Amino acid sequence: MNERTKKSELGTVRTEYYNAPKGEKFILENGIKIPDLKIAYEAYGKLNKEKTNAVLICHALSGDANAAGTHKDSSKPGWWDDMIGPGKAFDTEKYFVICSNIIGGCKGSSGPNSINPDTGKPYGLSFPIVSIKDMVSAQKKLVDHLGIERLLSVCGGSMGGMQALQWAVSYPEAVLSCIPVATTHKHTALQIAFDEVGRQAIMADPAWNGGDYYEKAHPSSGLAVARMVGHITYMSDKSMEQKFGRVLTKEKLGYEFTTEFEVEGYLRYRGDSFVKRFDANSYLYVTKAMDHFDLQGKNKKLHQAFRGIKTRFLVIAFSSDWLYPPYQSKEIVKALKMNGIPVTYCEVSSDYGHDAFLLEFGEQTKLIGHFLKNVQKKTEK
Amino acid sequence: MNERTKKSELGTVRTEYYNAPKGEKFILENGIKIPDLKIAYEAYGKLNKEKTNAVLICHALSGDANAAGTHKDSSKPGWWDDMIGPGKAFDTEKYFVICSNIIGGCKGSSGPNSINPDTGKPYGLSFPIVSIKDMVSAQKKLVDHLGIERLLSVCGGSMGGMQALQWAVSYPEAVLSCIPVATTHKHTALQIAFDEVGRQAIMADPAWNGGDYYEKAHPSSGLAVARMVGHITYMSDKSMEQKFGRVLTKEKLGYEFTTEFEVEGYLRYRGDSFVKRFDANSYLYVTKAMDHFDLQGKNKKLHQAFRGIKTRFLVIAFSSDWLYPPYQSKEIVKALKMNGIPVTYCEVSSDYGHDAFLLEFGEQTKLIGHFLKNVQKKTEK
Repeated sequence: MNERTKKSELGTVRTEYYNAPKGEKFILENGIKIPDLKIAYEAYGKLNKEKTNAVLICHALSGDANAAGTHKDSSKPGWWDDMIGPGKAFDTEKYFVICSNIIGGCKGSSGPNSINPDTGKPYGLSFPIVSIKDMVSAQKKLVDHLGIERLLSVCGGSMGGMQALQWAVSYPEAVLSCIPVATTHKHTALQIAFDEVGRQAIMADPAWNGGDYYEKAHPSSGLAVARMVGHITYMSDKSMEQKFGRVLTKEKLGYEFTTEFEVEGYLRYRGDSFVKRFDANSYLYVTKAMDHFDLQGKNKKLHQAFRGIKTRFLVIAFSSDWLYPPYQSKEIVKALKMNGIPVTYCEVSSDYGHDAFLLEFGEQTKLIGHFLKNVQKKTEK
Repeated sequence: MNERTKKSELGTVRTEYYNAPKGEKFILENGIKIPDLKIAYEAYGKLNKEKTNAVLICHALSGDANAAGTHKDSSKPGWWDDMIGPGKAFDTEKYFVICSNIIGGCKGSSGPNSINPDTGKPYGLSFPIVSIKDMVSAQKKLVDHLGIERLLSVCGGSMGGMQALQWAVSYPEAVLSCIPVATTHKHTALQIAFDEVGRQAIMADPAWNGGDYYEKAHPSSGLAVARMVGHITYMSDKSMEQKFGRVLTKEKLGYEFTTEFEVEGYLRYRGDSFVKRFDANSYLYVTKAMDHFDLQGKNKKLHQAFRGIKTRFLVIAFSSDWLYPPYQSKEIVKALKMNGIPVTYCEVSSDYGHDAFLLEFGEQTKLIGHFLKNVQKKTEK
């Protein structure tokens, strides 16, 4: 993820919360019910009278509801501030842009670090396993609550793209257009493998303690290692070579096991800063949700999942993304085309690897900006 | 690494040891001296009278001196048994094949788990940092001891390939031919990054205890995670998809964080079995040696490193190897050609990723077999 220290055109924003009505339980895909569902979200721009200009942004593994604008207590604008704001791809002069934090996360929505009303203590591993579908059905509660019947668009990168796809499949009538970016319709063995290493690193940390650590020292060492593995997969051979190469942090090599190469220092910094802002149990839950994600389903063809959908699609992939390689986006495109669903596919040429969806604003702005304008035009006819 | 349970044509073999003469100290590249240098090695075939038919095989990160044949107490032949033996690529009817364990390792040669004669206890982190060049100069001691002035060939895959390249550069007169396989002349930022994550996983394990654990519980959890990361990089997206896909180990998903996908079970098995046969401190030392490896050197061109060398080269890379991608082998080939050094480059088409050097025997056998015959013919003229 890129450093964000510049000023946001959206100014100061704040996170809001949707709380399920008293007594209503939220039913998960696996049948388990969560009491007191809470969803953290932010919204930018104005919802029009007809409520037809709402766009939902879905975030990735470590993201949160703060997609754009700056919080009062922070100097960094939200994670997609370059894409959301006046005159930007998601133009807040035209659209009402919502970003909601996922359930299972640790950024204000219900998750393993929430208080279990039955015990008065954090759930930990007693929080039920959640799926991408659950994240989406929780978002649907929020969207319903805001009185929006149909979203102009749902967009997201990485795990956000999985949610966008799931929205179109779960609620085709409620999604006019869909923009999955740098994503896949199902995790492959390689993607599961990387997630599993991260989980193993966390669970190998004695401080993890079976997920019961909220009142003690957190499993920071394990979570940092998990994040380091993740960061490698977000970059590319070329972007790492350009950014670090073999540049050293010290003159003389080889007398200890401290940081010697800049790339080592970068990874350690990324690992250490992540543990200050993320919960280890959420890392387990959210990566599991991604690994379980399979829009295709066992013994089915992917195109069957999209049957009957009228949503228009813009699918974006990045040339050097080896975590969610372009071939996976092309599989989605093919399955959509087999249903006669209107879809545009764009592969952005970039050296940034998977991180490109958080860094390549120029082309993404043009592609998404024009796509949304066209979708909106159709609604006005 | 592949499972090896079939019978070896070489029959039962055993590891032998070279011990430096009493009182002689082995001087490392960094000037530090090691007393009592010990090198574990094996040899197959017969050294001819002229001592001109010796081939040295260099092993990779987790390898050992047992390249071929079977140990009395084991059912598995050595790690390159398919390549070494009567009628094989390294034909033991023709060649005297030596494989020596690296210093810094934990398979019989001097390393961090060796006893420090000054303290009577294992060195741990007080063992000096070693380089690929040190591994090679220790092997040179062994080769000298065997009375061999010039090797017919030096060959190795992965880190073994780094040693082969270093041999040609350090002792050009002693190396008639060189076969670097699936390797590089310097670690890139990406390669350093993967190694660093492995080291961090080990050092994050409280049992590691600053490297001082030989009389206590070993840092098995950390080492297992390190090995899991490694294993992912040895395979390819395609080979993982073919081997595991999304196949499950249980009927019902998502109620716990135990193994659910076969790929998870495989990684855990690989991690757990590795800790039984490898030392965590050695993992730190050997990966550091690889990260420090840079034949090119700072502010130099790679072709300058090969100046004046008369060794003949066969460079082999594998199409799906993303840990040591073919472009890195091509850089070596170009640098050799810029010196007018005879070199043949072969890219073997394979889905196995980096592991291909341990699995693709058909083409490797033909390529290496013919190359060695030609080299030997030239010596007879």
